[in-house]
Amino acid sequence: MRELEQRILAEGRNLGNGILKVDSFVNHQVDAVLMNSCGQIFADLFRKHKPTKVLTAEISGIAPAVATGFHLGVPVVYARKSRPITMPDEVLLTLSQSHTKGGTVELVVSPEYLRPSERVLIIDDFLASGQTILGLARLTNAGGATLIGIGTLIEKEFEGGRKALEPLSVPVESLASIRSMDGDQIEIGNGEK
Amino acid sequence: MRELEQRILAEGRNLGNGILKVDSFVNHQVDAVLMNSCGQIFADLFRKHKPTKVLTAEISGIAPAVATGFHLGVPVVYARKSRPITMPDEVLLTLSQSHTKGGTVELVVSPEYLRPSERVLIIDDFLASGQTILGLARLTNAGGATLIGIGTLIEKEFEGGRKALEPLSVPVESLASIRSMDGDQIEIGNGEK
Repeated sequence: MRELEQRILAEGRNLGNGILKVDSFVNHQVDAVLMNSCGQIFADLFRKHKPTKVLTAEISGIAPAVATGFHLGVPVVYARKSRPITMPDEVLLTLSQSHTKGGTVELVVSPEYLRPSERVLIIDDFLASGQTILGLARLTNAGGATLIGIGTLIEKEFEGGRKALEPLSVPVESLASIRSMDGDQIEIGNGEK
Repeated sequence: MRELEQRILAEGRNLGNGILKVDSFVNHQVDAVLMNSCGQIFADLFRKHKPTKVLTAEISGIAPAVATGFHLGVPVVYARKSRPITMPDEVLLTLSQSHTKGGTVELVVSPEYLRPSERVLIIDDFLASGQTILGLARLTNAGGATLIGIGTLIEKEFEGGRKALEPLSVPVESLASIRSMDGDQIEIGNGEK
């Protein structure tokens, strides 16, 4: 998606260690109009696979996931990173390596919102190593639901996430793809879109 | 807003201690179509005050805030509850009492996204004691920006938040208002909308 690529080139900052700061339009400040456009594209890409639910991880996946859910007309579930008091005692839980935080984080979903009948589309902000998305795929599986596809705003090709997701055998779509980051030089790749 | 009130009556659950569980459409699973409608109403209510930015707190404020930002065509900033590594060293930070978590939580905003020229609309999921919103108002003030209004999806009238927000002297709008919760009995009040 040309607009997203241009924003990354104009406003993204390489903080080193593979971390791309996009706090001005994705991760802290959100460009709500851009997110809506991204949600529209994800909806158009995946509608044919008949998703009944969008799944993401808090926090920064929420904005693109809700935009996608809106355009598909389906509910969005965001996995929590700790079990809030409103959640039942029995939950679906998996551990995932966190790239930006170091160590492992929990991903928790209430089983009442991931039923076996659901067809799940995973949406997240980044595809880096793929560990968070693999965690969301495990939760989908644990709930007995069917994963139908994966969409991310920004793929960092050099972190190998796409390869890590191959065993899931579902379509993986990224709206902007980064081939490399070297100092101030961010090079856009030719990913999926 | 009639649709939101009906969802609360149909799916909301009183967990005791004033905690209302709305995990099936607001807090864990999000009804993206309903959120979009709520964002449209907030935009219509506050447009005349010329907001240039929507401010919320992660996590559950993000969905209604982004929907509102979309309809207003302005960016959304969500205060973080811990400083991520992508944030600069100098931040705007305040402490806020957390109702559902107990104790205090930090609310952190990068000053580059809350400039003195900004006209800020605060959007959040709940108006309970008002402490989170007061924290967001302090951040707005710390950044030198102007607060122009406050919108929340669900007001719990019996927790006194509206009175706590009075000193801010801005319009406060809730889309659904709860007068009382007693066991399984949730009584809708006559709040603002």
